[in-house]
Amino acid sequence: MHHEEIKKTVLAALKEDIGAGDITTTLVVGSSHKSKGVILTREDVVLCGMAFAHEVFSLLDPKMEFMAHFKDGDKVKKGASLITLNGKTRAILTGERVALNFLSYLSAIATRTHFFTEAVKPYPVKILDTRKTTPCARPIERYAVRCGGGVNHRFNLHDMVLLKDNHRVISREKEKLSETVRRLHIKTHKKIEIEVDHLWELEEVLKAHPEMVLLDNMTPLELKKAVVMTRKCCPNKPPLLEASGGITLENVKKIAATGVDRISVGSLTHSRKAIDMTLELMG
Amino acid sequence: MHHEEIKKTVLAALKEDIGAGDITTTLVVGSSHKSKGVILTREDVVLCGMAFAHEVFSLLDPKMEFMAHFKDGDKVKKGASLITLNGKTRAILTGERVALNFLSYLSAIATRTHFFTEAVKPYPVKILDTRKTTPCARPIERYAVRCGGGVNHRFNLHDMVLLKDNHRVISREKEKLSETVRRLHIKTHKKIEIEVDHLWELEEVLKAHPEMVLLDNMTPLELKKAVVMTRKCCPNKPPLLEASGGITLENVKKIAATGVDRISVGSLTHSRKAIDMTLELMG
Amino acid sequence: MHHEEIKKTVLAALKEDIGAGDITTTLVVGSSHKSKGVILTREDVVLCGMAFAHEVFSLLDPKMEFMAHFKDGDKVKKGASLITLNGKTRAILTGERVALNFLSYLSAIATRTHFFTEAVKPYPVKILDTRKTTPCARPIERYAVRCGGGVNHRFNLHDMVLLKDNHRVISREKEKLSETVRRLHIKTHKKIEIEVDHLWELEEVLKAHPEMVLLDNMTPLELKKAVVMTRKCCPNKPPLLEASGGITLENVKKIAATGVDRISVGSLTHSRKAIDMTLELMG
Amino acid sequence: MHHEEIKKTVLAALKEDIGAGDITTTLVVGSSHKSKGVILTREDVVLCGMAFAHEVFSLLDPKMEFMAHFKDGDKVKKGASLITLNGKTRAILTGERVALNFLSYLSAIATRTHFFTEAVKPYPVKILDTRKTTPCARPIERYAVRCGGGVNHRFNLHDMVLLKDNHRVISREKEKLSETVRRLHIKTHKKIEIEVDHLWELEEVLKAHPEMVLLDNMTPLELKKAVVMTRKCCPNKPPLLEASGGITLENVKKIAATGVDRISVGSLTHSRKAIDMTLELMG
Amino acid sequence: MHHEEIKKTVLAALKEDIGAGDITTTLVVGSSHKSKGVILTREDVVLCGMAFAHEVFSLLDPKMEFMAHFKDGDKVKKGASLITLNGKTRAILTGERVALNFLSYLSAIATRTHFFTEAVKPYPVKILDTRKTTPCARPIERYAVRCGGGVNHRFNLHDMVLLKDNHRVISREKEKLSETVRRLHIKTHKKIEIEVDHLWELEEVLKAHPEMVLLDNMTPLELKKAVVMTRKCCPNKPPLLEASGGITLENVKKIAATGVDRISVGSLTHSRKAIDMTLELMG
Amino acid sequence: MHHEEIKKTVLAALKEDIGAGDITTTLVVGSSHKSKGVILTREDVVLCGMAFAHEVFSLLDPKMEFMAHFKDGDKVKKGASLITLNGKTRAILTGERVALNFLSYLSAIATRTHFFTEAVKPYPVKILDTRKTTPCARPIERYAVRCGGGVNHRFNLHDMVLLKDNHRVISREKEKLSETVRRLHIKTHKKIEIEVDHLWELEEVLKAHPEMVLLDNMTPLELKKAVVMTRKCCPNKPPLLEASGGITLENVKKIAATGVDRISVGSLTHSRKAIDMTLELMG
Repeated sequence: MHHEEIKKTVLAALKEDIGAGDITTTLVVGSSHKSKGVILTREDVVLCGMAFAHEVFSLLDPKMEFMAHFKDGDKVKKGASLITLNGKTRAILTGERVALNFLSYLSAIATRTHFFTEAVKPYPVKILDTRKTTPCARPIERYAVRCGGGVNHRFNLHDMVLLKDNHRVISREKEKLSETVRRLHIKTHKKIEIEVDHLWELEEVLKAHPEMVLLDNMTPLELKKAVVMTRKCCPNKPPLLEASGGITLENVKKIAATGVDRISVGSLTHSRKAIDMTLELMG
Repeated sequence: MHHEEIKKTVLAALKEDIGAGDITTTLVVGSSHKSKGVILTREDVVLCGMAFAHEVFSLLDPKMEFMAHFKDGDKVKKGASLITLNGKTRAILTGERVALNFLSYLSAIATRTHFFTEAVKPYPVKILDTRKTTPCARPIERYAVRCGGGVNHRFNLHDMVLLKDNHRVISREKEKLSETVRRLHIKTHKKIEIEVDHLWELEEVLKAHPEMVLLDNMTPLELKKAVVMTRKCCPNKPPLLEASGGITLENVKKIAATGVDRISVGSLTHSRKAIDMTLELMG
Repeated sequence: MHHEEIKKTVLAALKEDIGAGDITTTLVVGSSHKSKGVILTREDVVLCGMAFAHEVFSLLDPKMEFMAHFKDGDKVKKGASLITLNGKTRAILTGERVALNFLSYLSAIATRTHFFTEAVKPYPVKILDTRKTTPCARPIERYAVRCGGGVNHRFNLHDMVLLKDNHRVISREKEKLSETVRRLHIKTHKKIEIEVDHLWELEEVLKAHPEMVLLDNMTPLELKKAVVMTRKCCPNKPPLLEASGGITLENVKKIAATGVDRISVGSLTHSRKAIDMTLELMG
Repeated sequence: MHHEEIKKTVLAALKEDIGAGDITTTLVVGSSHKSKGVILTREDVVLCGMAFAHEVFSLLDPKMEFMAHFKDGDKVKKGASLITLNGKTRAILTGERVALNFLSYLSAIATRTHFFTEAVKPYPVKILDTRKTTPCARPIERYAVRCGGGVNHRFNLHDMVLLKDNHRVISREKEKLSETVRRLHIKTHKKIEIEVDHLWELEEVLKAHPEMVLLDNMTPLELKKAVVMTRKCCPNKPPLLEASGGITLENVKKIAATGVDRISVGSLTHSRKAIDMTLELMG
Repeated sequence: MHHEEIKKTVLAALKEDIGAGDITTTLVVGSSHKSKGVILTREDVVLCGMAFAHEVFSLLDPKMEFMAHFKDGDKVKKGASLITLNGKTRAILTGERVALNFLSYLSAIATRTHFFTEAVKPYPVKILDTRKTTPCARPIERYAVRCGGGVNHRFNLHDMVLLKDNHRVISREKEKLSETVRRLHIKTHKKIEIEVDHLWELEEVLKAHPEMVLLDNMTPLELKKAVVMTRKCCPNKPPLLEASGGITLENVKKIAATGVDRISVGSLTHSRKAIDMTLELMG
Repeated sequence: MHHEEIKKTVLAALKEDIGAGDITTTLVVGSSHKSKGVILTREDVVLCGMAFAHEVFSLLDPKMEFMAHFKDGDKVKKGASLITLNGKTRAILTGERVALNFLSYLSAIATRTHFFTEAVKPYPVKILDTRKTTPCARPIERYAVRCGGGVNHRFNLHDMVLLKDNHRVISREKEKLSETVRRLHIKTHKKIEIEVDHLWELEEVLKAHPEMVLLDNMTPLELKKAVVMTRKCCPNKPPLLEASGGITLENVKKIAATGVDRISVGSLTHSRKAIDMTLELMG
């Protein structure tokens, strides 16, 4: 993300959290009082959000020293100090919550993504995110996924053709699937992916020559069969196979073992358990 | 939230998700094709976000019929249909993901809040949220907490005085706590809450006559002692006692039983497991 | 106010005043011509708005020297020079009006507030502003009040409960006042103030135990009686008494003498007489 | 002003005044409760701001009946009811302050302007406003001046050439005034006005053939002399003469009698005494 | 484009053109005066921009009757009336220029695109636009291209991989082209296009198996050779060939005849000759 | 234009062109890789847009060295290098298109304007632009006209009175033209121009004493007659005569020779042929 975008997002977050002024800090701490502060993580974490934390404190005290001990994407152990601050106490106390919110929210996504990418490490498979992101926060959530080693799926509906179940219900009314795909290839330069919900649909789909096939909610056994069928049917340039639906940390390795090329995991972004972090003031 | 705010938020979310256009739907579905669609929940849920879903489809097709079968705050059983849509197929398919994202994200918060309020039902205690919200999304997350039966804590740093650990470290340098509180009561009309991390601090805090006391990270036993000490020390108008830190669905009932007045739970908003919902097209 | 907010406000004011370009200055003054300029006050003033004036000239000439001879809140005598500028003549002439508008408008509020706070100096009473501010300019008008020694009342309708006449008309339909207040204390953590228009209402109000009472449009004699009645009725923790309505520089001292705790004055912000200031160019 | 601009301004004002929600009204008044309300003026007034008041209540309750008994520019007697409202009680109470702020602020400007235009009625002179407006509120303050019978001066620095004292100091360095004006007439299609601070400057200025002359801070006697000198010097197409500086309701008639064409009055907008208006709920 | 986007764009254009008010119309035409007006084209045109024209007049007079005699994409003969208006004269006169600007600007792009698509009609080739659009106006210019029968190229730099000359200079430092493409296919799901400036580069490029090849600034003869070479080299699934650079209405047919699949034409949007249209008032 | 405006415009243009990220550059070029780049013009040009190009690269790499070899308004020969860049390769490649779009678009307008001003050089006539600009881009297009030696016409409808054909149709219903103009001169301080479509209208128009007359769509012979008639009719202070309608590079000199004062040319901005420029990377 461009620095101006980060600044705009952080300003909005600060405005939301400060409202008409941080009355506690203003009334209790002198405007020239200075302190040292340290931000620590209380859990193992794949770090994400440092630029946001930096911006928070720079906006509140342009002279704040911000010493980053790690960078986005680093694996950090529980108890480690992430950032040392040196500057106006008011800025440290007023910015604390917003900075921690960015760090613990984004690191939660990066860390969760990392668990998935670690789990499938032995296999040449990619872990992808989905469009199940918090409304209006997709760019930063997608960035966190990348920090965790994941790969971004299409960013929006303009990025790629994905013929889902519902689209196929409609298009089936007028033409064969291979007709539809041929027509699409002429009208757009985007890649085409087709969703398949049942193994018996796969053959027809493969004949339409999409660049990718989305295998939705299939068991490892079905996925395995789909891989075999695909290799047999398109030996030269087989479409990429993406497994999707109900993927968990428990079953992801088994799914990776089926030979699919990509696994997309909604819970990378739609669910989260914020990382526990804290700011300690050194007086 | 005011309708204009909802519209602005939904427009931004649609823009993010649609980008320069939903190429799949535009290429596959005719612009005058109409369908019926149904949004279903696949889990038991306390519903939240209906106005957002409504706005999504109204913006995409001003003539869309939107039949809501439930309203925000309703408890809905797994499998129930929440909304029936009747209008342009393109609008239904293009809006599907954004509408589901709002509903499953906000309902997740409402439902989780409901679990907490149910757990403490026998006790006259309130479940509160915290400032640990997604940056820039606090108003809607707070609304979801209310739908789940929770009570909102201070909205921002201007709303209330909360002397946290870090503030007390600083203010202790110049004056006694009771002095600080007396001074604050003159300078602001906001209520004052003081954080207490150890039981031995409580007596000094009570003598300062705050309106609320935040008991941070205490065991049920410590909380119980704090309740007793408070009633003894301020029999006429005791401050409200708020328990905070490490509250889970497992321990919340035990904490409610200690007699505290309020329990604030970060995980209402900082963590979440999106509710599984889906849209089915009726052709 | 945060620097980014000041910048945004000043940019909007400059855009409004400059339109598609300051044709006079552009046509008459060379782009590299430099001058010294001085901003003077032609009246005694409590100064307010220096950060805005600074921003005006910085935006028009980033290298402008801006020497402030006083700071916000200072009492300055008629004729004194407030600011010395040294930089591009075009920037000085183009920015003159906007800078003077900010300074004379905000200083008018600060100065008027100061007159009130001076008038009641012998008494331990606070002068407060009201919500009668220029639409969309509340934060800066409230800041000017603070510069004049005043105290800000609730910033907005979310800040505090204030049961005004009209609210009480409605709520009386369903429950007793003390019932209402008890219910409110449970539902919100904000302080509660109740408006009283007639002395005979006061007793019922005091029994409801609000944190503050607003005595609206009462004579000094009535206010005095209200103070006595309150002390008698609630000897331990009496609510703060706020006098309001028809307060002028002529009667404010008499009202302070009645023993009320707070006096809120609409005319601090709703009326004003701009301070006469001028910019002189030194060639 | 265009309706979309009014809506944007009112939305911003409501957001400022309501913050995260009107807690008093929400907690005390039922969401379906309806009332009748009346807005009254407690002073004689030239009315201004009805479209803003209308927008306030429409945004809060789209079904609110808003009966306007007068329109902008009308002269209304003290005690008259201006608007009758019929709709949701919550909307009436939440919108009250913002609606009254717009009405009493804008009517104050219209009424003050009316006093000036009335005072000079016997003379064919125009009352003009100045650029001494509240930052970012010029369009609406200028509209109020028109409602009071005044004429708007240049809207911004792009609207007209006005060679003020400070410009003339600079331009004098390089060329004669008549040279400057000739050059300006070629470079721009805007009218040219020249400020004159002393009678002895007038002759040189008249020879430069500006379309208008600003006579700054002159006594009625000096103004009279200026009028005579101008008519003598330019019998065919004399420039318009504008008196400015220190104009008050006390001296404006004497100044009008001197024969100047225009009188510009800073205090139309830079100072104000808000009109006292109130909203009464009819239960 | 979504209606809210059109409204926002039109509002900004009106604000730009009207400034603080259309003084001519306001001073000359009564506010309730009504007229009929007709918008005519003085050249043959492929129409584009009707929704913008409609929005202009709706914003200025919500009750304006707007009768469209043609729709976007229609071919209209010189002299035909495009729109009949019936409503407030002020709205018609004030909106005239902005409405004409949108219509003649967008129709110019649609008409020019149409000339190109007509010229290549005998061939199965697509006419594409480029990223050479007016800054910040790409969505509407791209829409105009579609109205003229053209196909949109990638909307932005996120839409597709396009290895241009400059990229290849850099990447060549570290790896072979086919290595680069293989790596890219793993890291992104977007299609890959490679620019080729000389025929002797083509073979290496084809071996890298991109989805598209951009043949930049080649003669028809070179393009023909490229087509032959490609078919020979990749008989099964040849990449799409795009001709680009120096395409004019004079040479486009010859280029189409070479057998390339796509021709991208910068001048569709980077150059234009506005269509001459006019509004006539019917009194 | 103010630097903040330029920055805002460039940021919007970059956002439009980059979308969710420049995937090609990110995937192919290392984040710390540096290069030298040169922007060249492939046509003779009057340069315009350097501040925009500078801003593009500063926003993408704050440390980018940007060496400008010419400045806006300079006449530059085909083949000359305009700018040398030295900084992050990613910034150079990602910003290339947006920078070139600004430069070639604005230089096209400046260059075209220059052709017109050169053509009329022997005559004391001014070349003016019109309101036929790209919606929302008027300020920058007007700036380009000035760079090419042209003079800006009224910026918007608030800038000047221009009684066009359609206005005169309406006003004729109620009063004589000279009445209308007299009335306008009282109500506004703006200059007044009147459109004349036929020579026989000119006399009546001259008698109304406007400051300018717009001679629309007249032949050189008619224009010549109009000049003579005007000088005869108003020997002292004749209105400025502006020729308009159908002006081309072919006929402009003949029109200048008629003795009119101003020639307004719609095609300065409504039509354009982008200047061919390119960026070459030096590795």
